[in-house]
Amino acid sequence: MTTVGILGGGQLARMLALAGVPLGLRFLVLDPSADACAGQCAPLQVGAFDDQAALARFADQVDVVTFDFENVPAASAQWLAQRVPVFPGPRALAIAQDRLSEKSLFGELGIPVPAFQAVSTRAQLDAALARIGVPCIMKTRRFGYDGKGQFRIRSLADAEAAWDALGAQAGSVGLIVEGFVAFDRELSVVAARSRDGQFKAFPLTENWHVDGVLSASLAPARASQALRAQAIDYARRVAEATDYVGVFALELFCQGQTLLANEMAPRVHNSGHWTIEGAEISQFENHLRAVLGLPLGEPAMRGMACMLNWLGQMPDATAVLSQAGGHWHDYGKSARAGRKVGHATLRAEEATALSCALADVGAALSRPDQVQPVIARLNENGVGGD
Amino acid sequence: MTTVGILGGGQLARMLALAGVPLGLRFLVLDPSADACAGQCAPLQVGAFDDQAALARFADQVDVVTFDFENVPAASAQWLAQRVPVFPGPRALAIAQDRLSEKSLFGELGIPVPAFQAVSTRAQLDAALARIGVPCIMKTRRFGYDGKGQFRIRSLADAEAAWDALGAQAGSVGLIVEGFVAFDRELSVVAARSRDGQFKAFPLTENWHVDGVLSASLAPARASQALRAQAIDYARRVAEATDYVGVFALELFCQGQTLLANEMAPRVHNSGHWTIEGAEISQFENHLRAVLGLPLGEPAMRGMACMLNWLGQMPDATAVLSQAGGHWHDYGKSARAGRKVGHATLRAEEATALSCALADVGAALSRPDQVQPVIARLNENGVGGD
Ligand SMILES: Nc1ncnc2c1ncn2[C@@H]1O[C@H](COP(=O)(O)OP(=O)(O)OP(=O)(O)O)[C@@H](O)[C@H]1O
Ligand SMILES: Nc1ncnc2c1ncn2[C@@H]1O[C@H](COP(=O)(O)OP(=O)(O)OP(=O)(O)O)[C@@H](O)[C@H]1O
Ligand SMILES: [Mg+2]
Ligand SMILES: [Mg+2]
Repeated sequence: MTTVGILGGGQLARMLALAGVPLGLRFLVLDPSADACAGQCAPLQVGAFDDQAALARFADQVDVVTFDFENVPAASAQWLAQRVPVFPGPRALAIAQDRLSEKSLFGELGIPVPAFQAVSTRAQLDAALARIGVPCIMKTRRFGYDGKGQFRIRSLADAEAAWDALGAQAGSVGLIVEGFVAFDRELSVVAARSRDGQFKAFPLTENWHVDGVLSASLAPARASQALRAQAIDYARRVAEATDYVGVFALELFCQGQTLLANEMAPRVHNSGHWTIEGAEISQFENHLRAVLGLPLGEPAMRGMACMLNWLGQMPDATAVLSQAGGHWHDYGKSARAGRKVGHATLRAEEATALSCALADVGAALSRPDQVQPVIARLNENGVGGD
Repeated sequence: MTTVGILGGGQLARMLALAGVPLGLRFLVLDPSADACAGQCAPLQVGAFDDQAALARFADQVDVVTFDFENVPAASAQWLAQRVPVFPGPRALAIAQDRLSEKSLFGELGIPVPAFQAVSTRAQLDAALARIGVPCIMKTRRFGYDGKGQFRIRSLADAEAAWDALGAQAGSVGLIVEGFVAFDRELSVVAARSRDGQFKAFPLTENWHVDGVLSASLAPARASQALRAQAIDYARRVAEATDYVGVFALELFCQGQTLLANEMAPRVHNSGHWTIEGAEISQFENHLRAVLGLPLGEPAMRGMACMLNWLGQMPDATAVLSQAGGHWHDYGKSARAGRKVGHATLRAEEATALSCALADVGAALSRPDQVQPVIARLNENGVGGD
């Protein structure tokens, strides 16, 4: 009997547990909050990620450790790794936790990145702005997620406001300035690498963000064979360079035929949720297979899939459940503005059917803006495909 | 927040809970055993099905009740139904619990059945044998499952041994004698009926039993359009006549183009496990949708699927996990001779690929006998299909 320990008890841990139960796995989730939503389907230990006594109790009960939350203190991951296998390993985690180190690595691996520069002082901000130019974005190097810890600098006049907003964090989590990429679209590769170096990528996914938060994903992304191969090759380079074990996402900006790497997420990823119904194996099961040293599953698609994120509160389920390929995911969370509380996946054999399903759901839920860009992409001619 | 109460905490409850968590449901499982395997992923109340105090505590905590186990005392189902909605309803459950009443109903609905006769005394057994002839099978009317409570009477000389084996149960659970059907094959329809009378059947499934226990299922069954339509029409008649709500299975014997109904199972069914990966929606989710009054999902297939049952102890998972369409289901039970401990589903787009996957798995696990009849069926020409 194998028990998998998961640091963090949000929806990712919840979906990992649901995928792992059929494999005969037991779980233990560590989370600071007693009502972490993964606790509804897996045993939950309430404790802080930096509480050594809690970590010790946790380590004693599990055979392997993985993450729902990538911002666990690096020291905690290292401490655990001395006692029990931890995947992804602390080094891969440390790189992915820091926007500066991940962007530096991408550059070393020959993967194009937006212009970037670390910033520790107000003067360095001015220097960075002079070099990179505007528009650009200042971000915290660590602990950002869902667009939090970011400030968009549209003109040099915004520099003062940016420093007011984030300057206080220069010493603690560090800051980075990145050139603003006027991308055509955003893409991601969700891929798995096994303990013995096997690598399998899900089909390239296109993503739409609203206010820095994922709103919709479409798979497979409509892209040329060359672009898809390029994206997956970049993901493979990152996985191999970090000796990564498990599932991760590489987020990319696409400008014409050029891909620029934005960041990597060292865990299962929101842009891979469609794999639950849209692929032969889900990202969640493949992550567990990787972490446990089991054969990786085939990330082959079944038709096409679109995921829609639900933020704040769950909409009525009926419209989605009434679609032939409609699937519902309620994370069991209480409502709160901006919170990721669930998602839906619509699956269809081809673009027209998917487009119709999206139009139906968008209309029924009064969310035309959320589905419209996906429908537009599906209706485009000549965007790619084989 | 809706809590679904499940009477019985075996693998069916476990898979119901796994299917229901994404719908935002909470569960409470009632089972006499503290290590009921559904307890690994849902809250478990340990208690007897006929303990009124336990039932009262259970009823207080749930919004709707359903079954993992159809042999819950009818009185308990009725008692609960006065306090909380119970689906399928006590009347449908009572019919399905008794081989005599279900066969009588099938007959009334114009569905062919094997010759049958209720038996309460040794003399009635002789009379039944005289009328039905040999070979035949004596079965307990109630509480049978996995071929338990059955005695095959090959010649009149077996009558005494049959009575020795089962006669003591004539007064308690009742006995029935059924003509032995020299069937070509066994089929089942797994279907859902909603609270408002909507009916949706999964594609017809072919099943192979060993010693009265399901060994393998193949979907879609290779059968003519007429036979498939007939089978599904029979299932619809049964569902409507019993005002059934939820998923059920109708087990059929097929002789040439004739279908005879064997029994109905008033719950999700082992011959529908392939739907988890092989259909757009699983039998488990469709059962929950029916019970909760949500729209039923589309039971459309994705390619072809074969389920293999694991009895006694789990085999090594590697061979199945190495198949492109290989899916593993470990019920988290301890090993015990004959116990259903798990299953695998192999999925493929067409017959040849499925046949190869089965051959690989059969060879790797030294189980040629389990996969051989399925492979033979897949390789047959002209069995049907459109
Ligand atoms: N350099 C950039 N140029 C243009 N847009 C950007 C840039 N950086 C971020 N964005 C936009 O903001 C979104 C969120 O940024 P980023 O991925 O860096 O933050 P995050 O907090 O990690 O978000 P998430 O958790 O959603 O991945 C991006 O997906 C993109 O839409
Ligand atoms: N009348 C019959 N003629 C031929 N074979 C029969 C007959 N009744 C039962 N069998 C064989 O025994 C198997 C189990 O019988 P049945 O379905 O009645 O019992 P059960 O205990 O309810 O089993 P399960 O729980 O697996 O459905 C059947 O699937 C079939 O293979
Ligand atoms: Mg991002
Ligand atoms: Mg049966």
